[in-house]
Amino acid sequence: MITIALDAMGGDHAPRAEVEGAVLAAREYGVRIVLIGVEAKVRAELNRQSARGLPIEIVNATEVITMEDSPSVAFRKKRDSSVHVGAKMVKQGQAEALVSAGNTGAVMAVARFVLGTLPSVDRPALAAAFPNAKGGASVLLDVGANVDSKPEQIEQFAIMGEIYYRTIFGTKRPRVGVLSIGEEESKGNELTREASNRLKQTSLNFIGNVEGKDFFKGDVDVIVCDGFIGNIVLKISEGLVEHVAGMLKKALKSSLSAQMGYVLSRHAFAEFRKKIDYSEYGGVPLLGVRGITVIGHGRSNSNAIKNAIRVAAELCRAKANEKIEKELSAAVASARV
Amino acid sequence: MITIALDAMGGDHAPRAEVEGAVLAAREYGVRIVLIGVEAKVRAELNRQSARGLPIEIVNATEVITMEDSPSVAFRKKRDSSVHVGAKMVKQGQAEALVSAGNTGAVMAVARFVLGTLPSVDRPALAAAFPNAKGGASVLLDVGANVDSKPEQIEQFAIMGEIYYRTIFGTKRPRVGVLSIGEEESKGNELTREASNRLKQTSLNFIGNVEGKDFFKGDVDVIVCDGFIGNIVLKISEGLVEHVAGMLKKALKSSLSAQMGYVLSRHAFAEFRKKIDYSEYGGVPLLGVRGITVIGHGRSNSNAIKNAIRVAAELCRAKANEKIEKELSAAVASARV
Repeated sequence: MITIALDAMGGDHAPRAEVEGAVLAAREYGVRIVLIGVEAKVRAELNRQSARGLPIEIVNATEVITMEDSPSVAFRKKRDSSVHVGAKMVKQGQAEALVSAGNTGAVMAVARFVLGTLPSVDRPALAAAFPNAKGGASVLLDVGANVDSKPEQIEQFAIMGEIYYRTIFGTKRPRVGVLSIGEEESKGNELTREASNRLKQTSLNFIGNVEGKDFFKGDVDVIVCDGFIGNIVLKISEGLVEHVAGMLKKALKSSLSAQMGYVLSRHAFAEFRKKIDYSEYGGVPLLGVRGITVIGHGRSNSNAIKNAIRVAAELCRAKANEKIEKELSAAVASARV
Repeated sequence: MITIALDAMGGDHAPRAEVEGAVLAAREYGVRIVLIGVEAKVRAELNRQSARGLPIEIVNATEVITMEDSPSVAFRKKRDSSVHVGAKMVKQGQAEALVSAGNTGAVMAVARFVLGTLPSVDRPALAAAFPNAKGGASVLLDVGANVDSKPEQIEQFAIMGEIYYRTIFGTKRPRVGVLSIGEEESKGNELTREASNRLKQTSLNFIGNVEGKDFFKGDVDVIVCDGFIGNIVLKISEGLVEHVAGMLKKALKSSLSAQMGYVLSRHAFAEFRKKIDYSEYGGVPLLGVRGITVIGHGRSNSNAIKNAIRVAAELCRAKANEKIEKELSAAVASARV
């Protein structure tokens, strides 16, 4: 049975959302879950759930990393945080994966330094799934683990992202593209042109540049970019969906008939919101570290936690890290030839 | 009276949208408009309008740049295109501004090479207005005139964008920020950190980094970034609004009650769509060239054309280019001290 180390103190709704998500995941996915956090709090929460007979344990961690802690302070000063304890369990083979909805920067720092990167990985990358117009998902990476990436790192992101996509979305030959500002090969900046040149020579199903206007169309499965750009795209998209939803809500309160209309179409709105809801996608894996690491959104509810655990378990079952190491070392070897 | 050279052959709905927009603008804003394009077609369209007595003329241009033409081909091979003829009129003082809803890359190339840049401007920049949550607009630049910008160019974008914002939106001290991936000064990439260091030393109302998640909140008026990133932000935002609107439409057709709800709230939806409609903002100025140049969206309707003409006229009346040259040359001089 796969064991997941779950940071029970991470998200905005911790430990409740975490414990509920753990119970749901243990029941649905047949995984063992170790809840890591301030024991009394986590146990009180677990006692509220009907978790009897489920493979859920608690491991104490005395410190809590907050959303305000800087990654370096969190890493250096809070050695007994739930994130550290979880990462150490993975490092020591007591768990196969670490899941946290905590401070993204801190989780990344701890995972990178406690677990280390896979031998052939230059820099780990965060891979985020976006719902697209085809009803599927497009994965963008890196969304913020790195800035000022080099072309060879973008190539690595593509290889890691493709393995992730195959594992989680079941596509045999995911289409891979580079986020750029024109469809033509000559368009883009220095980084995208060089990265494209490299990607053309891989065995990936590389389809070239993807423009911003086509990002949500669903014609590409894995889209690579530098983490500065990817983070801006992720955050702008979240911000824009909220902004548009806010304006729509305001408009629907503007008159009595609009309000009645809203009541009648409430179910449709709920369906719509579900489709643009990140929580179905279950967090963002940090690809390339030794030990599966999945980072959930700070606002994760129990459903999001459950899905983050599912993603972690699937990556473990598929031996994603072995595949990443194998394909990357082959790519490095062929580049040397 | 200010004279605007309007490319009548540019947009997807040319020449109809252009001619209609010209008539509306001539009537509302008291500007003289020179419609440039294939004379017979433009005249036929103008004859359909009630434009008698309005200061609208037609100047013939035998060639038309299409959306498929590459900027370099359009620039070199179609010397008698409506864009070239318009730019030459501005160059020779027969018009004060060029407005086109045509091929953005081609219009930029022609404007840059026919008009040239202002003496103190290193690179011109495209400035796009985004409706924000406060009901106002935030301006992002550069949205695609440049890639791989240098910190001193980002500083110039900020100075030019601030003058544009003051002119068009009437704010006395627009807040200026750098698009980045964290609020703290240390966050970002090499470019944003160096650009921030420069911007802190200017007299601008510089508020530091703006994160993607806060982009639409309306707490910053002018946001600067490299054109590669700005173009991706612009196109992703357009694509996402379309994507969300499409999903919502689908949801609202999913059941009879949802459909009835939609009918009742139709007016609210129309108001909502108007708020997220680019056409109210009237195109994107290419700041920094000698002669005001405003580029409309390819899909511009007559309202968008009218507003693009308004923006061009306001920039002329405010002597925006004189201000840009004055402030930039002062910034360059103070940097030399």
